[in-house]
Amino acid sequence: MDPALINFKVLYVLTQLCGLTMIVLVATWIGQHFGGLAGTSNPGVEFNWHPLFMTIGFIYLYGNSILIYRGFRTTRKKTLKLTHAGIHMGAFILTVIALKTVFDSHNLANPPIPNMYSLHSWLGLSAVIIFSLQYVAGFVAFLAPGLRENYRIAMMPLHIYFGLFGFVLAIASALMGITEKAIFAIKTPAYSTLPPAGVLANVIGVLYVVFGALVVYLATEPSYKRKPIPEDTALLNSSSANE
Amino acid sequence: MDPALINFKVLYVLTQLCGLTMIVLVATWIGQHFGGLAGTSNPGVEFNWHPLFMTIGFIYLYGNSILIYRGFRTTRKKTLKLTHAGIHMGAFILTVIALKTVFDSHNLANPPIPNMYSLHSWLGLSAVIIFSLQYVAGFVAFLAPGLRENYRIAMMPLHIYFGLFGFVLAIASALMGITEKAIFAIKTPAYSTLPPAGVLANVIGVLYVVFGALVVYLATEPSYKRKPIPEDTALLNSSSANE
Repeated sequence: MDPALINFKVLYVLTQLCGLTMIVLVATWIGQHFGGLAGTSNPGVEFNWHPLFMTIGFIYLYGNSILIYRGFRTTRKKTLKLTHAGIHMGAFILTVIALKTVFDSHNLANPPIPNMYSLHSWLGLSAVIIFSLQYVAGFVAFLAPGLRENYRIAMMPLHIYFGLFGFVLAIASALMGITEKAIFAIKTPAYSTLPPAGVLANVIGVLYVVFGALVVYLATEPSYKRKPIPEDTALLNSSSANE
Repeated sequence: MDPALINFKVLYVLTQLCGLTMIVLVATWIGQHFGGLAGTSNPGVEFNWHPLFMTIGFIYLYGNSILIYRGFRTTRKKTLKLTHAGIHMGAFILTVIALKTVFDSHNLANPPIPNMYSLHSWLGLSAVIIFSLQYVAGFVAFLAPGLRENYRIAMMPLHIYFGLFGFVLAIASALMGITEKAIFAIKTPAYSTLPPAGVLANVIGVLYVVFGALVVYLATEPSYKRKPIPEDTALLNSSSANE
């Protein structure tokens, strides 16, 4: 086997382990230290859906959706595109729920907490908007029929750049979010004394960075790029292919 | 002129304007809202060197040093390498001073503030360590004589990847730093009511992201890559070249 592919597989498995550990630790963090999960009747605890669903949707699924082409390179292109759009849709739905729960946790608190004042909220919402625009643009350019091939080719570098930019911005926003929650909620003993809840917060932040760095590396290293397979070309050349 | 080069120049000027505005706004922020600059006699104000010198050194100079090859493409390679190492050294010196002032501001406070507990400090110091290791590795691989050409070629992708990774991690750390300072120091009225000091904090954060996004784009877009010039080859082939 191509040595580059072996490297890819090792790093890909590491990425998954890192991503899954990150999710388990966020669940542990909110479960052990902040009261677990709740509905609108307890806005302070309802908040906990926000870091959990953002981590699963806007970081883990977003990153995995980016990697789908390189991770499943023997699958035909059309299936990969649909899977990419499908995982991104899953990520989007979890992200919207995560946004609803944070607005709830602010609006239903007594007294209410202001919305959209922090740098975390400005950059996090920007990342969601970039993600959404990318979804629409990607759908029109690469999934819907009709766009001329030269436009598709011209749009691909922009789709890749803004896809990775949105992903990195989501991670940067998560780091600010963890920082905010640690300062606001780790009080007795204080975050500054590094109690277990504080160490866990920092470890989660480090895992976000390692996961992000691995995804970006696997998605951009030229030797890991998926090569077209015969089935891809057959579909382009034959209108009778069973899609 | 090559249209790609015109695009590059427009975005390069935008990057500089964004970077300089970012520095001016950080200076304004600490000057207008947090008492300007001071020495060890006033640790709370001495802290202000930290965001200022990190912004100038670890973000603006770091980014510009990355771009030097593409920004000054008609300069010969050897001069560019020395300039790259020189600007990076300037960035490193400002970063070390910025670290000293934040440790001072913690240790000399009454009561002292704990060091190295926050996610900001963990990831920020990681970025400084990655930067320092990169400097040593880059010096050995690309400036010091003796390393075989095939090793240099093999190291270049790693140098580029970890250089950009350290840069993005520096920006992510700065976003957490701004978040911390805004929460801890914008009190009357509170950050959550978005007073002028809070808006300015968020605008600085947005500029960090835009500056970082522009630098990474300009440094990675293939059509902007510097092409070897005759002077580069002459130096490789002739030992009598006046270096």
